Amino acid sequence: MPNPTQALATLKSRLLEIQHLKDAAALLSWDQETYMPAGGGQTRAEQLATLQTLAHAKFVSPEIEDLLLHHIDPATGLANTEANGLDEASKALLRETWRDFSKAKKLPSDFVNRLERECSLAQQTWAEARRRGDFMHFLPNLQTVIALKLEEIDYLGYDDSPYDALLDTYEPGATVAQLQPLFATLRHGLLDILKHVQEASLPPDDRILFQSYDENQQVTFGKLVLNRMGYDFNRGRVDLSAHPFTTSFHPTDVRVTTRVFEKELPSCLFSCIHEGGHGLYDQGLLQEQYGTPLGESLSHGIHESQSRLWENNVGRSKAFWTYFFPLLQEHFPSQLGAVPLDAFYAALNTVKPSLIRVEADEVTYNLHILVRFEIELALIEKRVEVKDLPGLWREKMQEYLGIVPERDSEGVLQDVHWSLGALGYFPTYTLGNLYASMFFQQARQDIPALETDIQRGHLLSLKAWLNHNIHQYGRQYSATDLLHRITGCELSVEPFLSYLRAKIGDIYGFTITR
Amino acid sequence: MPNPTQALATLKSRLLEIQHLKDAAALLSWDQETYMPAGGGQTRAEQLATLQTLAHAKFVSPEIEDLLLHHIDPATGLANTEANGLDEASKALLRETWRDFSKAKKLPSDFVNRLERECSLAQQTWAEARRRGDFMHFLPNLQTVIALKLEEIDYLGYDDSPYDALLDTYEPGATVAQLQPLFATLRHGLLDILKHVQEASLPPDDRILFQSYDENQQVTFGKLVLNRMGYDFNRGRVDLSAHPFTTSFHPTDVRVTTRVFEKELPSCLFSCIHEGGHGLYDQGLLQEQYGTPLGESLSHGIHESQSRLWENNVGRSKAFWTYFFPLLQEHFPSQLGAVPLDAFYAALNTVKPSLIRVEADEVTYNLHILVRFEIELALIEKRVEVKDLPGLWREKMQEYLGIVPERDSEGVLQDVHWSLGALGYFPTYTLGNLYASMFFQQARQDIPALETDIQRGHLLSLKAWLNHNIHQYGRQYSATDLLHRITGCELSVEPFLSYLRAKIGDIYGFTITR
Repeated sequence: MPNPTQALATLKSRLLEIQHLKDAAALLSWDQETYMPAGGGQTRAEQLATLQTLAHAKFVSPEIEDLLLHHIDPATGLANTEANGLDEASKALLRETWRDFSKAKKLPSDFVNRLERECSLAQQTWAEARRRGDFMHFLPNLQTVIALKLEEIDYLGYDDSPYDALLDTYEPGATVAQLQPLFATLRHGLLDILKHVQEASLPPDDRILFQSYDENQQVTFGKLVLNRMGYDFNRGRVDLSAHPFTTSFHPTDVRVTTRVFEKELPSCLFSCIHEGGHGLYDQGLLQEQYGTPLGESLSHGIHESQSRLWENNVGRSKAFWTYFFPLLQEHFPSQLGAVPLDAFYAALNTVKPSLIRVEADEVTYNLHILVRFEIELALIEKRVEVKDLPGLWREKMQEYLGIVPERDSEGVLQDVHWSLGALGYFPTYTLGNLYASMFFQQARQDIPALETDIQRGHLLSLKAWLNHNIHQYGRQYSATDLLHRITGCELSVEPFLSYLRAKIGDIYGFTITR
Repeated sequence: MPNPTQALATLKSRLLEIQHLKDAAALLSWDQETYMPAGGGQTRAEQLATLQTLAHAKFVSPEIEDLLLHHIDPATGLANTEANGLDEASKALLRETWRDFSKAKKLPSDFVNRLERECSLAQQTWAEARRRGDFMHFLPNLQTVIALKLEEIDYLGYDDSPYDALLDTYEPGATVAQLQPLFATLRHGLLDILKHVQEASLPPDDRILFQSYDENQQVTFGKLVLNRMGYDFNRGRVDLSAHPFTTSFHPTDVRVTTRVFEKELPSCLFSCIHEGGHGLYDQGLLQEQYGTPLGESLSHGIHESQSRLWENNVGRSKAFWTYFFPLLQEHFPSQLGAVPLDAFYAALNTVKPSLIRVEADEVTYNLHILVRFEIELALIEKRVEVKDLPGLWREKMQEYLGIVPERDSEGVLQDVHWSLGALGYFPTYTLGNLYASMFFQQARQDIPALETDIQRGHLLSLKAWLNHNIHQYGRQYSATDLLHRITGCELSVEPFLSYLRAKIGDIYGFTITR
């Protein structure tokens, strides 16, 4: 038996090879969304399925299992006493690799291949169905995907709710039992703020954001902001895609995309800032841990906390626009030259129930997530059938937001996630918002000059704080532990609600006392 | 033992998986040349090495060998009598797969990985050395690459010249013994034409090609020509890169690149047409043969014949510009509006010894190749040392072209090939020119209206002829057999020399009688 250090080195070199396969797959996906000619779609799906099936097969090999069992006690999933010579980071690396291995090993190779293929096909059908506003066109594929996810749950197993098996994929450790009370409090708080907003006498006017804005200038300004955020263009780039996203092939090659509409200033602007937050996380992971869990982002919720912190806590703040609004005015003098900062700031923070999640304001955004969470839960717990989703969607939208889509393209068909089999993913968006407010509150305490820094366009102190406190650790700590290390607190909705009450109350002229 | 059809089907599915890996690697390479941020280079090299080592390992597996040996008699490399139930195409598929397998199996996996890595590093060093015009900076890497190629030759084996082992990789069946007399005749013929050119009293003036031309307009015009050639943009795209190239991930996703210089009209124009010729070949391969040798291009020489046929036989012809010159004038009215067609045509066909191969005219181009062929041969036969290459380069340039580079960046450092380990590749460029003239001569006989078609901008009859006679077969026939099937002749330099004597003689006002 090799000594622990040798076994660990061998394990890392095997993981590195698998990572190369996964990153090749990630490039294939990025290319599919940015530059691939339309005719290449079918083969691309097959190429992706091959790479991912191969990466899975290599990972669940007996060799990896042997290497892990040099160190891991399978009863606890933790490094055993013989691993005493290893430091804390190495033990965490082994723990997380074992976690991934145990999950991956439960999935038959054939299932991984079927899931990849069906999801690729479902995604293409979904895109067409959304274009046509025709849910029935998507229905058979969605039924297949849901059936596959139920099959996946059977493989993975669960203690309490079957939904937990999926949730755990995106947010390790999260459970329905934990989320439901949290989300109930959140819902109550958000509906209360929304009620105050709707009763306010003088809502801001956001029409200035929907004038005609030159698309190239919009992208130029987006890149300017990314640059100030510390996003490194020598290790990244910005492209256009139908839906903005961030992808990484290594900390030295992290790419964001944006989209730009001539008559919607917020779209390109906030997608740049949002994806830039994701990009800073991926650029901030340690290069020497590439291929291991310590070189990966912690969870989807923590990842989303980085994008939302930059997009909302920073990017929709008065301090931020104190510096950036004059620059934006220089880019768009005829549209914004005569607009006062306060009016622009208020316009950016207009609260109004709307049909599309990705365009929602900070107050109503999480109500969209709650709608999806409840629908997914009902699906997975088999309380509703796939064919009934459009009706259930309208019902929940009425209940939470008081509006109902006329067309399914603005309703149940709007998001790509289900076509990709990404059920259990939506709740991480809300967790991200909650984490973001807690992190930002702490950053303000840790960096006394933060407000002033931001007012001066100096965003690098915040970036350094995030690098230091979050990015560099990869998956060394659990989300709960990381949050506690940084803030000393458990996850709570209160920081987020307090932040919203103060900010939105200030803009709309109301006070909510608690 | 499975029946032949079952074994063949299993073999094809294994080859398909390997093809997916190779195509993922091809996308990584394409991305590296087009969009990858500079910082990503080091990791990209490692990702590529992993994918290619894995593809190699999967190919030389015992399973593939068993499947092949169901059908192949290893003594002949041909389908054995038990394979009688298979059609000719399937037998060819097996023969070519066995050929690839036998070659690949001679290379140890560790060697494949070392070669990939060293070449990636050498390429980066070469680029830097070329920028700095410093051969010594490149020398250690080039020495390593040459040592690896000599090692590769030892693995592959050879009958006559060690260079044959390399040549056979790019042009199956070609040998030094076959090329040397062919090239000697070619050299003699080309130097004779060049002598007549240099004695001509009124050479054309090509300065009109080097005015200022808007770069976007150049690319627009390049795409217009590609479109008329029948290059399918639904299954392809055009991007910019430092060195134009074509790559394919499947017949439904074939990409070309170009480069554009404001003051050099020929660069973007002819790289688009040249790469378009390559692109039509790859788009014309049979989709149902994807992953098998019948879905691959036949050889580098045949591939180059497609690009050169379009670039030179078509793209530098009077007929072509009869249609396209008025369109080009519309794109550049101030630069070309007053230029007569004949003057433009003559300018495009100016013959003049120059230092850079890729900018060379049709007469001197192959002299550049002969210089490289002789140097490579001397290197591989150990008649010269790597450190002596700059001197040898100047000597050969003087001998063949009568000019000598002042800087190595315009001499021995100008081409990427050696850094990539692509020794034995250059001769296929000349073979491509020879094949092109023979194919084009035959196409003119088979399509009586071809000249008129081209004069009217109807290029699809030629494309269809190439699709039908060449592209659809992949590697079903050897280059020699394909040439014979199409033209009834053996490879010869005479059609190419006749074509040049007639065309260049007409422009420069001389006649060479033979």
